[in-house]
Amino acid sequence: MTARSRSAPESPVGADEDELLPRGQRKQRTRDALIDAALQLMNEGRSFNSLGLREITRVAGVVPTSFYRHFKDTNELGLVLVEESGLTLRRMLREARRAGAPVKDMIRRSVQVYKAFVLSNRLHFLFVAGERSGGSPVIRSAIRNEVDQFIDEMTSDLRHLAIFPKLSPESLRMVCELVVNTMLHAATDILDLPPGDQALAKLQEDNHVHQVRLIFLGAQLWRDEAN
Amino acid sequence: MTARSRSAPESPVGADEDELLPRGQRKQRTRDALIDAALQLMNEGRSFNSLGLREITRVAGVVPTSFYRHFKDTNELGLVLVEESGLTLRRMLREARRAGAPVKDMIRRSVQVYKAFVLSNRLHFLFVAGERSGGSPVIRSAIRNEVDQFIDEMTSDLRHLAIFPKLSPESLRMVCELVVNTMLHAATDILDLPPGDQALAKLQEDNHVHQVRLIFLGAQLWRDEAN
Repeated sequence: MTARSRSAPESPVGADEDELLPRGQRKQRTRDALIDAALQLMNEGRSFNSLGLREITRVAGVVPTSFYRHFKDTNELGLVLVEESGLTLRRMLREARRAGAPVKDMIRRSVQVYKAFVLSNRLHFLFVAGERSGGSPVIRSAIRNEVDQFIDEMTSDLRHLAIFPKLSPESLRMVCELVVNTMLHAATDILDLPPGDQALAKLQEDNHVHQVRLIFLGAQLWRDEAN
Repeated sequence: MTARSRSAPESPVGADEDELLPRGQRKQRTRDALIDAALQLMNEGRSFNSLGLREITRVAGVVPTSFYRHFKDTNELGLVLVEESGLTLRRMLREARRAGAPVKDMIRRSVQVYKAFVLSNRLHFLFVAGERSGGSPVIRSAIRNEVDQFIDEMTSDLRHLAIFPKLSPESLRMVCELVVNTMLHAATDILDLPPGDQALAKLQEDNHVHQVRLIFLGAQLWRDEAN
């Protein structure tokens, strides 16, 4: 699930209207409102570590005690945020890597899928980009694990596609780490691009595609013994 | 100037002891205390955007009004932090790139210089890594400009070293951008490494060296017309 599939943070759960929903949906909406409230507060320049349970429930428009029906503590909410940011994207990227297309097209397609996802999940990515080196060790290591999953999945996909038959498993993973980190880094640039500037957006997309292609080019030449 | 050349944030400027210093030094010490106070607060999990002038002066152990004798506002303090993080490092890296050494050694040397600098300027790098995608547009674009200077200097150094004679200026810059972003990304990993684990530190350093070498390998093959 991603941020966009949820009610906007601006619309807290109204009790009256809420009564009309079945219990399960009601619970889900409150949970979503809490997550969106945390994202909203961080979008206002707050770090995750500085968020309090009471302000999250206040912004979400629910009573403080209801927080515990959904999360053990704010850390658990943060972990859900990390998971949400990666889950759907990982699936979409694996789709984009399905065999068939030439490597060049696969790279372009992956960059486009990623870019579209980042733009439609802005707050999640600002959260991940910021908290990757943020104050909470729990969240930092959760983000690290999530990024490792991207790297592992890409490594296994490329192995099955046999794009770099000469690379050792370690080197193939190093290549994928380089690509994943490059694209993670690209998220901030993508989000900071002035909206509507199509020419600049195209230049940026080409630049990201070229960076990944250059890494792949290096991977084709890479020999462990020589390095 | 870097963080380590300053009085530790724990030691606020004591008025009595301060009287003994010449006016210039006294002014410098207060300024450093304010900067260290901001770094300390961010190290406690606060985002730069959420820092208030009063708490910075409180942590620094000076009166609020004295802040304005050093900075126009908190943003100006943030800009100084960005500048401090890059200034010395840029000089050190240019040194490491001076002609003479083989490319392989130049890469290893640069990675080592960078690693040592990151470790001895921990708070500065956590600030840059976090605020690069943080809530303050002013700081974000200042960090972007600082990173661009690293890329420009590396581009001009590599051009003079004629390591990639076949690359167009645009492609050479793209290669340098890839390297600089990869190392900027590496800062968090370097800082999160358990201290004292020499074996792991060596593995990490080799991994960073290999990533840069692989990029250079790709750069040797890169042809604009083919991509």
